Amino acid sequence: MHCFVTGCAGFIGSSLTDRLLQAGHTVSGIDNFSTGLHEFLSSAIKNPHFTLTEGDLLDKACVVSAMKNADVVFHFAANADVRFGTDHPSRDLEQNTLATFNVLEAMRANDVRRIVFSSTGSIYGECEIIPTPEHSPFPVQTSLYGASKLAAEGLIQAYAEGFDFQAYIFRFVSILGERYTHGHVFDFYKQLLNDPEKLFVLGNGLQRKSYLYIQDCLDAIFCAMEHARDKVNIFNLGTDEYCEVNDSIGWICDYLSLAPAKTYGGGDRGWIGDNPFIFLDCSRIRKLGWQPSLRIREGVQRTIQYLHQNPWVLEKRN
Amino acid sequence: MHCFVTGCAGFIGSSLTDRLLQAGHTVSGIDNFSTGLHEFLSSAIKNPHFTLTEGDLLDKACVVSAMKNADVVFHFAANADVRFGTDHPSRDLEQNTLATFNVLEAMRANDVRRIVFSSTGSIYGECEIIPTPEHSPFPVQTSLYGASKLAAEGLIQAYAEGFDFQAYIFRFVSILGERYTHGHVFDFYKQLLNDPEKLFVLGNGLQRKSYLYIQDCLDAIFCAMEHARDKVNIFNLGTDEYCEVNDSIGWICDYLSLAPAKTYGGGDRGWIGDNPFIFLDCSRIRKLGWQPSLRIREGVQRTIQYLHQNPWVLEKRN
Repeated sequence: MHCFVTGCAGFIGSSLTDRLLQAGHTVSGIDNFSTGLHEFLSSAIKNPHFTLTEGDLLDKACVVSAMKNADVVFHFAANADVRFGTDHPSRDLEQNTLATFNVLEAMRANDVRRIVFSSTGSIYGECEIIPTPEHSPFPVQTSLYGASKLAAEGLIQAYAEGFDFQAYIFRFVSILGERYTHGHVFDFYKQLLNDPEKLFVLGNGLQRKSYLYIQDCLDAIFCAMEHARDKVNIFNLGTDEYCEVNDSIGWICDYLSLAPAKTYGGGDRGWIGDNPFIFLDCSRIRKLGWQPSLRIREGVQRTIQYLHQNPWVLEKRN
Repeated sequence: MHCFVTGCAGFIGSSLTDRLLQAGHTVSGIDNFSTGLHEFLSSAIKNPHFTLTEGDLLDKACVVSAMKNADVVFHFAANADVRFGTDHPSRDLEQNTLATFNVLEAMRANDVRRIVFSSTGSIYGECEIIPTPEHSPFPVQTSLYGASKLAAEGLIQAYAEGFDFQAYIFRFVSILGERYTHGHVFDFYKQLLNDPEKLFVLGNGLQRKSYLYIQDCLDAIFCAMEHARDKVNIFNLGTDEYCEVNDSIGWICDYLSLAPAKTYGGGDRGWIGDNPFIFLDCSRIRKLGWQPSLRIREGVQRTIQYLHQNPWVLEKRN
């Protein structure tokens, strides 16, 4: 199978690319390296079945050309920064919604009709039903990030209906593990590296969040693609548990044998639009036989281990 | 109150403009006249409290300037053509989603924080719950039109959360009445004017649809703005009934005293993405005291009467 991966140098995209190559597939990848790292492709780039295009999804002609000969598109490029959406309101719209439109148009141009999309649990807004299933009540958006991913999902679904595409849409919790370079575990680790005595926490630390280990996430995607055959297949991806931000801090400090003094920003939200309780009902994907291999605690520890062993990643993100 | 109305020369926008002026408000309107008609503003344009900007919502600077001094924005401009979405996939994205983004950014620039938005029942896709309430299950989009309006709703909601806007989002069924120049009643009337003996019907004529009379629609909007005070207020707008396309044809033919031979395109959908059964649960707006004055049959008859008395409208739309 010839796979086209957008965001192929990102945390999830590069991990996916490696897995697809290991499974014997051909991979064409595209990345604009705004947050992606060449280092994440150091293995892939040596593989004769891998082709890299350095380009931006907002350049439609470039996407059309890079996608040539693909059988399936894994659209994983995104602005994944939820927190600073209101600082630059056009970024989510452009990098998530408009980029998805260009990917879909490039698919039409190349007659590719199968798309796998990395969506997010953020699109449920602050759902009252927890754990939140895929068929939860019509959500109200609370972030520009969520709104831009919802818009992308809608486009993909309309293309499925209008142009006979098949779509796999995955609503992720936060993903952790090797190559993780963004989010709260990363931020805490960086703070502790700079000053092992102090830790500043956004909100009150009681926010309840869910995480999934990257390889479990990829297993789930492959499982769904093998077993689900609808025109539009939508799956929540997470573990059957959640943790408090304070739990996560505890695991990180345990791993590093540190006991920093914690100060809190206060309030039940870390920032505007921060959802104080994210916990997805993942029974739909579990019914297909998938189950995660790591619990959240293990995922956090694996992440810290990776950051510890790869100090260059922190330099890249400074 | 100083109101800014986008799509002020359209069917709904011009009717709204007239009502706002009658109520003593100041109105600044913008329209690009792609489907709007100067004739619909013949009364408004004589009113010293009305200002018209001929401009496009994709020109952000123009929107920012036209919106100056507004207290509230009625964003009613849209590409309302559901049927031909797949013929030009970028049109809904640009005219509905991107235009909405520019309106929201212009609001930030002008420090306007109250928006009224014309959304659509189409965003429910083919919901299994009928009549469909606002909190129906998370929908799957079946048209580019629906997807583009869903994206616009999401943006508005995210702005409400991120920038402390107040939003009124109305999910309309099809609107009928004076100045109606688009949709199945218009199409049937035009066909019968050309040849009173024959009528071609898309689908099998059994599609069940809902309609609302324009003045009832505007009454509902004013009622909601007076009584609903949440950050994001979402209301379905329709009557508590639906009709078959064949019923509608019967009323039109009765009114015109015609008995054309009908031929059917066949199938339970008129086109790709056509929803064979649209019926919204409007109990939320009814609880605020609103009720429609006309039933669907009367709305259809009022529409035919208008088209009959205003033959110039048909010439404009040829």
